[in-house]
Amino acid sequence: MEIVSQNRAFDGVQTVYRHPSNTCGCEMTFAVFMPPQSEDGPVPVLWYLSGLTCTHENAMVKGGFQEHAAREGLAIVFPDTSPRGDGVADDEAYDLGQGAGFYVNATRDPWRTHYRMYDYVTSELRSLVTENLQVNGAHGITGHSMGGHGALTIALRNAEMFESVSAFAPIANPTQSDWGRKQFSSYLGDDESAWSLHDSTILLEEHGWKGDILIDQGASDQFLELLRPEALAAAMAKRRQPGLVRMQKGYDHSYYFVNTFAGDHVEWHSQRLNGTRH
Amino acid sequence: MEIVSQNRAFDGVQTVYRHPSNTCGCEMTFAVFMPPQSEDGPVPVLWYLSGLTCTHENAMVKGGFQEHAAREGLAIVFPDTSPRGDGVADDEAYDLGQGAGFYVNATRDPWRTHYRMYDYVTSELRSLVTENLQVNGAHGITGHSMGGHGALTIALRNAEMFESVSAFAPIANPTQSDWGRKQFSSYLGDDESAWSLHDSTILLEEHGWKGDILIDQGASDQFLELLRPEALAAAMAKRRQPGLVRMQKGYDHSYYFVNTFAGDHVEWHSQRLNGTRH
Repeated sequence: MEIVSQNRAFDGVQTVYRHPSNTCGCEMTFAVFMPPQSEDGPVPVLWYLSGLTCTHENAMVKGGFQEHAAREGLAIVFPDTSPRGDGVADDEAYDLGQGAGFYVNATRDPWRTHYRMYDYVTSELRSLVTENLQVNGAHGITGHSMGGHGALTIALRNAEMFESVSAFAPIANPTQSDWGRKQFSSYLGDDESAWSLHDSTILLEEHGWKGDILIDQGASDQFLELLRPEALAAAMAKRRQPGLVRMQKGYDHSYYFVNTFAGDHVEWHSQRLNGTRH
Repeated sequence: MEIVSQNRAFDGVQTVYRHPSNTCGCEMTFAVFMPPQSEDGPVPVLWYLSGLTCTHENAMVKGGFQEHAAREGLAIVFPDTSPRGDGVADDEAYDLGQGAGFYVNATRDPWRTHYRMYDYVTSELRSLVTENLQVNGAHGITGHSMGGHGALTIALRNAEMFESVSAFAPIANPTQSDWGRKQFSSYLGDDESAWSLHDSTILLEEHGWKGDILIDQGASDQFLELLRPEALAAAMAKRRQPGLVRMQKGYDHSYYFVNTFAGDHVEWHSQRLNGTRH
């Protein structure tokens, strides 16, 4: 791992790393905030998955997570949202190709060579983080929009890997949304049975989640029809899944929404990862 | 004033406005965060002046001020750093022309037509804010780098307009720095006597400040030789000026530094503007 940048922040350290990725077949960049508590020993990790068009950088710079993570003693990992580079397939649309990996392993050409974000996050990057940074075995995961989809689907399919999960305005039911159907048909092909492994509403209905779940959703989000929070809320109620779906009055889909509730999510995860839940 | 964007944040509202400016002779853009307390009545205002290359947007997005302002009940105004537009003089250098107004009224061609950021901030924009927003008469001012220079010089010359002043890594002694001499000779001409009105070290030595002053400076700032905090610290000590100059170990010149100490500065101003100082 090569250090791209490193800045002191909130008595911790914000670092950007670059590394060759076997999984994605290209160079990948990610960011990590290490809180001051990591100087005294390993700390839990919160994974933050970003949304469409984002890199590792957007939430790192605009999300306001570091202050809360420094207070709670959590590391935060910000992966990129797709493979990148001249040799990596892309599309002119903002919601397909680079910046829009959707946290799946593509099985169709031209995507399958590099678009393996599911394996990248759950395996390769997890190993890199665990082996190279001062973190312990307690992992939580969250994300925004496409990243909220990623957080939920990855947690629901890998309950042994995560102790806690939350999401900000997730793409909650992508098999029934234009944010989902377009990408799944491109990356995974037209057999919709392969899609359901990447739909948190379906996964939740089938498997539930071992703990409780926190979902925040802006009630004035401009993308509500694409996000379909009602599907996930219904699935949670039907499953009797412990958790909260909070419709936040007046909030839209922007980073101001994420920023506003970042503290709540970091604290939520900290209580479950640090064992300080009351 | 035309609304460019508006987002709910921390139960307040973050707005970007555009307006024709008589002072600058062009359209100007600025941002304001109004805290939730402003729904119940006028609130104090903290002015945040930004540094070289910035617009109104950088600190609005990356500074992390809104969360603290919402807690403390302060409005925050983020002006642009220079006039802008095709008809506005510019320079290829990052530190002259657009993005580098240095908070002076230029007296030399080609700058004097539009580069009047001193009057813009102290008069035109102040009137716009006071007359159109739910603010009271208590104003504080802060800023980063070139904006720290702007905050200190504007406050020291207009003690009747501001109740509190602080700065993050200010350009503290520009008459003796390449961040200052170059710009002052371009904007104000070669007569250095006109420059001293825009040097906070000189102004402080001569006039002092009615209250106390908070300066934060990263000890690992990559621009320490240009910022010259030692000159301002010496002037404060020589003048017996109440205040703090805090050299912050390990911090650089980035927004991570600003972000880390944003809460301290907002609280400092709130105590002095809301009259809650203990």
